[in-house]
Formats: sequence, C-alpha cells, structure tokens
Amino acid sequence: MTTEITAPASTVIVLGENQYGKAEVRLVKITRDTARHQIEDLNVTSQLHGDFTEAHLEGDNGKVVPTDTQKNTVYGLARDGVNSPEEFLLRLGAHFTGEFEWITGGRWAAQQYFWDRINDHDHAFSKNKNEVRTAVLEIADDGSKSIVAGLEDLTVLKSTGSEFHGFPVDRYTTLKETSDRILATDVTARWRYTSEAIEAGIDFNTVYASVREQLLTLFANTHSLALQHTMFEMGKAALEANPQIAEIKFSLPNKHHFLVDLEVFGQDNPNEVFFAADRPYGLIEATVTREGGAAKHPIWANIPAFI
Amino acid sequence: MTTEITAPASTVIVLGENQYGKAEVRLVKITRDTARHQIEDLNVTSQLHGDFTEAHLEGDNGKVVPTDTQKNTVYGLARDGVNSPEEFLLRLGAHFTGEFEWITGGRWAAQQYFWDRINDHDHAFSKNKNEVRTAVLEIADDGSKSIVAGLEDLTVLKSTGSEFHGFPVDRYTTLKETSDRILATDVTARWRYTSEAIEAGIDFNTVYASVREQLLTLFANTHSLALQHTMFEMGKAALEANPQIAEIKFSLPNKHHFLVDLEVFGQDNPNEVFFAADRPYGLIEATVTREGGAAKHPIWANIPAFI
Amino acid sequence: MTTEITAPASTVIVLGENQYGKAEVRLVKITRDTARHQIEDLNVTSQLHGDFTEAHLEGDNGKVVPTDTQKNTVYGLARDGVNSPEEFLLRLGAHFTGEFEWITGGRWAAQQYFWDRINDHDHAFSKNKNEVRTAVLEIADDGSKSIVAGLEDLTVLKSTGSEFHGFPVDRYTTLKETSDRILATDVTARWRYTSEAIEAGIDFNTVYASVREQLLTLFANTHSLALQHTMFEMGKAALEANPQIAEIKFSLPNKHHFLVDLEVFGQDNPNEVFFAADRPYGLIEATVTREGGAAKHPIWANIPAFI
Amino acid sequence: MTTEITAPASTVIVLGENQYGKAEVRLVKITRDTARHQIEDLNVTSQLHGDFTEAHLEGDNGKVVPTDTQKNTVYGLARDGVNSPEEFLLRLGAHFTGEFEWITGGRWAAQQYFWDRINDHDHAFSKNKNEVRTAVLEIADDGSKSIVAGLEDLTVLKSTGSEFHGFPVDRYTTLKETSDRILATDVTARWRYTSEAIEAGIDFNTVYASVREQLLTLFANTHSLALQHTMFEMGKAALEANPQIAEIKFSLPNKHHFLVDLEVFGQDNPNEVFFAADRPYGLIEATVTREGGAAKHPIWANIPAFI
Repeated sequence: MTTEITAPASTVIVLGENQYGKAEVRLVKITRDTARHQIEDLNVTSQLHGDFTEAHLEGDNGKVVPTDTQKNTVYGLARDGVNSPEEFLLRLGAHFTGEFEWITGGRWAAQQYFWDRINDHDHAFSKNKNEVRTAVLEIADDGSKSIVAGLEDLTVLKSTGSEFHGFPVDRYTTLKETSDRILATDVTARWRYTSEAIEAGIDFNTVYASVREQLLTLFANTHSLALQHTMFEMGKAALEANPQIAEIKFSLPNKHHFLVDLEVFGQDNPNEVFFAADRPYGLIEATVTREGGAAKHPIWANIPAFI
Repeated sequence: MTTEITAPASTVIVLGENQYGKAEVRLVKITRDTARHQIEDLNVTSQLHGDFTEAHLEGDNGKVVPTDTQKNTVYGLARDGVNSPEEFLLRLGAHFTGEFEWITGGRWAAQQYFWDRINDHDHAFSKNKNEVRTAVLEIADDGSKSIVAGLEDLTVLKSTGSEFHGFPVDRYTTLKETSDRILATDVTARWRYTSEAIEAGIDFNTVYASVREQLLTLFANTHSLALQHTMFEMGKAALEANPQIAEIKFSLPNKHHFLVDLEVFGQDNPNEVFFAADRPYGLIEATVTREGGAAKHPIWANIPAFI
Repeated sequence: MTTEITAPASTVIVLGENQYGKAEVRLVKITRDTARHQIEDLNVTSQLHGDFTEAHLEGDNGKVVPTDTQKNTVYGLARDGVNSPEEFLLRLGAHFTGEFEWITGGRWAAQQYFWDRINDHDHAFSKNKNEVRTAVLEIADDGSKSIVAGLEDLTVLKSTGSEFHGFPVDRYTTLKETSDRILATDVTARWRYTSEAIEAGIDFNTVYASVREQLLTLFANTHSLALQHTMFEMGKAALEANPQIAEIKFSLPNKHHFLVDLEVFGQDNPNEVFFAADRPYGLIEATVTREGGAAKHPIWANIPAFI
Repeated sequence: MTTEITAPASTVIVLGENQYGKAEVRLVKITRDTARHQIEDLNVTSQLHGDFTEAHLEGDNGKVVPTDTQKNTVYGLARDGVNSPEEFLLRLGAHFTGEFEWITGGRWAAQQYFWDRINDHDHAFSKNKNEVRTAVLEIADDGSKSIVAGLEDLTVLKSTGSEFHGFPVDRYTTLKETSDRILATDVTARWRYTSEAIEAGIDFNTVYASVREQLLTLFANTHSLALQHTMFEMGKAALEANPQIAEIKFSLPNKHHFLVDLEVFGQDNPNEVFFAADRPYGLIEATVTREGGAAKHPIWANIPAFI
C-alpha cells in the first residue's frame, strides 16, 4: 500500500457545477370556486442555476435570490392554480429565469400526493397513499426545457405467474430454479417527455393516468420469466400508448417473498405461506426507449438516479 | 391544450442502459485473530453491467448471474477481510468481471457504519451514528475504474459566526438581513479519487479521516457569509490536503433555526431561543474541483446525485 | 440543588413485570384454493408471560421458549389460514398457553396491510396503503382474553366546515380565532371488544369495516368546532353502530395547514393557498366509552398508548 | 360465526380519559453568557388534563388553552434556561397548573439531542446521535408529580461473550444451541424517580450520566447467558448506583446477527462473517425494581410503553 501518485493534481481549486434553492415547500391548494372543492397537495423544490461564483468565493450574495424568496414565490404563483405539477413547474421556471437576468436556468421538482373524496363529499377527503406522482423540470442555460415525470412507491404483487430459471451457476450459487414464485416490487418509474410534447402543451394529467394504467396492466398480465422481462413489457406498453414520451426508466426492487419450509414441522406448503423479507433485495434498473433515441439526456444527471 | 405533437416518435421500442444486482447486503465482519476484536459493519450493493438484452426481451436468463449469487459472493469474499469499503468493492468488482466473461463492468457501493469500544473493551462496542461513510466503485466497459467516496448525515451547527445579507430583493422578498444567525447542516459530501490514486493503491481510510477532519475544521473556523461560502472553503481545504482527490461534491441542506419572537410575551431574545424547522429547507449544492478538471465524470450519472 | 433524599430506597433489587418474544414476523399468506387467489399480509408479534425469573437472574433458559420458535409457530399456524388478525392471534395465544404449562398468558399483536386487485385480476394486486389495521390480544394469568382492534395512519382532511374560537387568552396567546380553517388528521383509533363479543366469536372483519366507515363518515359530516368535538362524534357513532365494542380511544394529531399571507405580495388569499406544517402539531387524545364502563382496562397498559 | 352477544352494552356514550396539547415543539436554546456557547436541543410535548367535556360534547372551547399557546409557552419559559429536561418540564407543568385553575394536571415530555464541540470550538458543534435522552413528567389531579427519565436508541454489540442454550424444544423448534454468538441491541431504558428525589431537587443530569455508564458497563462486562440475563444485570447496577431511582424498565430488541454458512462455498466461518437481520427480531422487556416496590405506577399508563 502506498500513497504515491504518478501525476500531480492541480493545486488551484475552483468552483464547478452548482445550484441552490429551497427544498420541500409543502403546498396545499384548495380550489373553492364552487361548493365542490378541489385539493392539490404538492411538495415543491426550486433550484436556481447561474453564475454564483462570488457567493462561493467571496461570500458576496448580490446574485443570490434567497431560498426564502423562492419559497414565497411558490405560494404566490400557486394563488393562480396548479393544474398539473408539470404546468406549475413551468410557471415557476419561467418566473425565475424571466425575473432575474443572471438566472440562466434551474431545476424545479415536485411530488404530488393524491386525495380521494370521502363518500363523494364536497369538501372531505382521505389521502390516497398508494403512490406518489413526481415531476422535474430542467431549464438549460440555452433556455431549452426538459421534463421528466414519474411515480414512486407503487407497490404491486403477483401471487403466481412468475418463474425464474435458466441462470448461470458458479461456486457461489445456492438459489434453486422455480416455475412459480411471488413477484413483488415498488415501482419507481420516470419518463421523459419529448420536446415536441412540451412545446405543444399537452395535458400531463392524461398522460400520467395512461402510463400508470399501462404499468399496472402489464405487470398484472405478463407471465413473468424475470423481473427484467416484466419491466421491459411495462415500459414498452407505456411508450406505445403515449407518443409524447421519449423514454422511460425504472428502478424496481425485487421484494423477495421466501416460501417458508414447513416440512420440518410436518406440514406441506404449496406456495401458501411466505416470509416477506426486507433486506437485501434485488434491484433491477433499466431504460426503455425508442429506436434511434438520443444518448443520455442531460436532465438525468440531476435526478436521484438510476443508470 | 392539445396532445398533437409535431414530430412522430419512433414506434420501435428498444432496451437502453440497464443494470441489476443485489442491494443492501448487510455484512458484519468480526476480525478475531486476537482477543481484541475488530468490527466492520457494511451495507453492500452489487450491480452488474453487460448485455442482458435477452433477459429483458425474451426472459432468457442465461447471462443473468442471480442477485442471490451476488449476495453470497459478498459474504464469501468478506471471509478474507474488508479493510476499507473501497478495497472491498474493488475485490467484488474484480471477481464479477473476472468470473463471467459477459460481465463487462458494474457498480458496487457500500455504506459503512462505525462502532466505538465501550470503555476500551476488547469485544464490546457501541454504535457511533454521527455519520455514515460511503463508497462507490464503477468499472466501465473498457475496464477503467472510478471510485467516489463520501460521508452522509454529519450534522453540524454554529451558534454564531454566520451572516447573510446583500441579497437581491423583489416583490416576493420578505427575508430580513442578518449579521448573526445559527448555521446548521447535514453534510453529504462525495469525492472522486484520481485514477492515479486508484492505481497506486492508496490507503483510503487515511484519506477518509483527513477529508472528514478538513470538513469539520473549516465548517467550524470559517466566518460564514453564506452557506455557499462555507461549503467552498470546506471543499477547498479537503482538496488541498488530499492530492488523491480530483473533485468533491456537496449537498448541504440549510437547516433553518428561526429566532422566536418573544417580544409579544414581553421578553427579549438576544439570539438565545430558536425554533428548529423541518421543512422547507435551503438546499445548497456544488462541486469543488481542480483547475483544468475534466468535464462531468461518468460515474456521477449513477450516484444518487446532486448536480 | 442537592442529591440528598429523605427516605432510603431498598437496596434489594428484584425482577418486576416482564415479557419477551419475537416481534415483526412478516407473514404473507396466499390462499389459492381456486384460481382467484386471496392475499393476507401481516406483521405479527408474539410475547409470552410466565415465570421467567431464572432466565433473568441465573441465565437458566429452561422455561424460555425461544423467540425463534415463536416465529416458526406463526408460520406453522398460518398454514391453516388467517381469516382475521384477531382470530389468528387467538389461535396463537391458545397454542402457547396450551403447549407450555408455565406460559400463563401473553400478548400477541398484528398489523395487517391491505391489497386491492389490479383490474379485478385473479392473482395480481396493488398495495392499498391508505391505512393499517391493528389488533392486540392479551391473555391474562387467569386465562381471560382481551382484544383491542384498531387502525393507524388513516389521513383525512376537510377543506372547510371547521371552526376554532372561544378559547381562553393569556400572555402567551397569539392564535387568532377562525370560523373557517382546514382540519386534517392521521387517525389512530383503537377499540376494545367486550368479553361477550370475544366469547361469541363475532366476525371481526365486519366490525372493522363498520367502525372505519363510521369514523370516515362522521369526520366528513360533522361541522367541527374543535378537533375534540369531531373526535367525540366519531367515537360515539362507532360505539352506537357496534355493540360489540366497549370503548374506543383516539390519538389524533392536528395537522396544521397555515393560510399563507399573500397580502405582502399584493395578492388575496381567500382560504386557497396553505402551508402544510410538519412539527409541532396539536395532539388530541381521548377515550369514548359507554356509561358505567369499567375503569382503565389492563390491556391498555401494554399498548403503545395514549391515556 | 355469530354477532350475537350475551349482555347488552349501554347505549349511552360518554367521554372517558382525555388529554390534549402540542407535540414535538422543537426548541434549540443557545446560552451565550460567555464566548463559549452552550447548546440545548429538545423536542418538547405538552399535554393538559382537566375537565374538557364541553369541548368534546358541545364544541365549547372556553377551557381549551390552545395548543398554539402551549407551544408559545415552551419558548417563553426557555428564555430563562433549560438546565435539564426534567427541570424544564417541571417549570412547564407548574406554569400550566398554576395559570389556569381548571388545568388539574398534565403530561409533559421531552427528547434531548446531544452535541459535541468540534475541536473544542467555542461555538461550533457536531451532533452526537448515539442516543436520545428522554423525560416525562406527569402531574396527577391531586398535584403529585412523577418523573420517568430514559434513553433511547443506544446501540450496543458484543462480538463474543454471549451464549444461548438450555431452552425447551417442541415441534416448532429449529434453533440450535450456541456458546458463542453476537449479542446486539438498541437500548431503550426508562427509569422512574422516587418522589423523595423529585422533592429534593436532585441533579438529573448527574443521575442520567450514571445510569448510562452503568448500562454500558454491565452490557460490556456481563458474560451473557441470555439477553434477559444481561438486561437484569444492567438494571440492577443502575438501581444500586442510584438510590434516586425506584425502578427501571427496558425494551431490548435482540438484533440478530446470523452466522453465514460459507461451507457450501468451500470456506470455513469461525464466527467472523455475519448477516445482520432487520426483521423479525427478539423483543425482551422487563422491569427491574426494588424489593417491596409499589404496584404499577400510574405514570406508566401514559408512556409509549412496554409492560
């Protein structure tokens, strides 16, 4: 072991990429134009890009729009409605890049939480926690806009219709092949809209509902030979049904459900009694894209990210 | 609002970037060569890269080294020791890329948890939760190795010696300037080793200790004009003290401590009584690097990532 | 300040109340008698009561049924079905108190997670995370059985129909009265079954559904003058509709949604834009019971507990 | 299965025990009398007892001291210092029962977080997360005061010096006996002060430090034959060293570390490589008390509680 290194690194230290802003601004917007209220519930993050070198090197905040101001702006702009997280982020982004000449771009993100009406009540709701909707807008320094939408933590399970076999075997292999196992995962999916779709002003809520429906349906209906196999089918269906989407990425934990060995207790166990394990878990990640699709799009570099 | 898009996207759907493996393999290694035991406590994730197209498109698992096998391998390789997370990941990476010809690379990551001896006892320990050490190794398809090390969740606070003023004001500005505020953050830092350092087989534990010490010292000793200002000083010191590091990235929440208005109760409050807020929080992120440093290194694309 | 105390405490140290067992046994039971599978998903804890003095004082484990055995028993008994968490816990309790003569009682608890069918599919499900069902069985040393059932984390919100005024004012009061505010809470409710109901072998699933429906309906339909007021109405309706229940306890955080002051930005805010706060929160807790109801029932002493 | 019950329950519904207040008031107090600052970091909950029947039944808030006022009072009283969580809670309790005649008692609780100085700096700190200190004060309707202090989440591990054998065996037993295993737990301990100690105005910080030291030392030094065995020794030492304490309760998860079977890979594993499991876990709970100690003290009924 040695600490000698063959090429000396520069000793001049400089600022590289940077951004800053306010994270997790919790916004609840009630639309009460009629007695039948609407609720929109978001967690918004605003991060600005620009030349903030002096703040870092000198502590000169002349260009640092306070994160507190960014928070206030979220609430101020919400007064005129949200409609979809994507549209709200577009308004936020336009505001900051328009208001401050040195703000050349930024990253605005939101999680949206869903509420169901209680007994179809006009103003009483129960929170639907089955999934979280996500959206990220990035405005690059050239002004171009990219949007990635998604969902997180949608937990699904098939109690049969899932196999896993034919894998390579080595010294460390102890797994047995199976033609009938439980398949379960928490779906995190993120899809990038085409620039044409963004320009056209599509209805993001409609695409969200469609992608969600495709993911659930293909998870349910695919006879699975591997989680990779199911995942690809899910992504393929989402892209086929939604030309507004350029690509979709998945991060899918394989939530293992181990068949309990009841034989030692004198009992059979025909795929009925399972131990649901926490850790470790398989982790299956991929991009499903269109032929001829671009190389890695820059927006992915700033998303809590799988490959 | 319209769903018309101006350019038709390809309807041929293909597989893009992908990886898979076992996440969060909880490994505790006791070294008991002498009566004075050593403990190493890690959370290891292994993800493989290669051509897994057939698994995704056909459900053919002929090249899918099971995630269960990856887990077993973590334990098998740990039998010969850990030493540092970086060295352990290097051994894991070498194993998988050496054992299976179609495994062209991968991503191996670890969190390390620390333990202190209880009263200098030989085999009794209490967990030191003040921070978590992290490491990520990526082996690219050309065989080149990149390593990012880091720490997470190191919470620090200054009760004075922090100012914030001179910022731009607009319609949404309500923040007041201050020349004396609490500054607090949870440090997440990640630094990338130079390829020379990796080749030279440096002592990663020594560099870890040095970077940690620099971060703490500069946080404490910098009279802060902005969290950006403090952050840059921390990164600069870490790089200056450790030529083995090419660049360092930070993600620093500004954990707000608001002075409580006690005047309405007939009391003064000379920076003594604060409300520690949860959300929202400022989020300050940057790279500190060396002059002439490379553009964005590919390993960052696969790290839960700030800019 | 002094450490002198007026009456010497005994210096003879003895064992007091104690229990032990296995916690959080994750059980997924698939019933697959027909092609239309049923899924039951539980988190089970088993704790035994008896004379375990020798284990504590001498380390003699002759009466310590291993927690590992308790876990195995959960899986073994699940082979014959779950049906309701309460019935499953009754079977567990009968097993341990019947199998080991020195086990005089115990505490068995479960959380149940719900799953919905995806598109009415026979064996594909998505997790319904809107609430968690709970149950606790305690068998006392005299063999008597008590059951507390409940639900946790059912989040509800009213966007109007909630007032709060008429409260006392002192030096520390800054709150303004309101006749229109958001009312939101995460419902934790626990109700105790009468011993008659337990003996009669009631259908616990039916009562669960009824209580849940009453809680939601009364939350929605009560014009609220205080969260205490709404809570009492919820409990009253649950008891009136379900004679099998002796009493019900609530722990309700008042999840504050603060109206954002937009006036400083030149905007009005007619109860439309809110900041959803995390901490602190109001915490409203009470028992709603029947006239002549017993004093505090012993089972409550061993439940993560509000008053 | 029937829903018939043998004795009709009363249909008159009444309010039972209740309390309300503000939970999780985050207080950071900086004492800056000299250049060497002190930091006290607490999470305070205030809950009031009294006759709040009209609020529940009629929505009449005439006796409901707002939870917002309780929060303000926490900050107001903190202006004059904290010193120890117990002393601060005593001041809070005296305030509310003294200020409002209908407030007959209450429950005040705190968590305290620790901070270490960075390099012995005067005003820079890093958070010490190794444990959380807790305190609960209850003032009964007769004015008597009870205090339970404690610590949570102190994680400890012994890499040897722990056995487990001699347990009963039945049909569901698969556990093997062992004379050398890892023993690990997260210590939750809560001790009740004698009324004499409370009256005498003891130094709670000193007792806290002593109990903590005893728990760590006995965990380390006891050759363990069961976690019950170790736990009793820990409690015994804490009581012996601190006559101010009437009893101590523990809730100790047995955090399993399973020896990995490396034999199938052709390797030995002499207690060196372990899998640290998450769930299920053993759960060992007991009271250690003084001979002739009272029956269950009422304060325990309102503490997130083990037996």
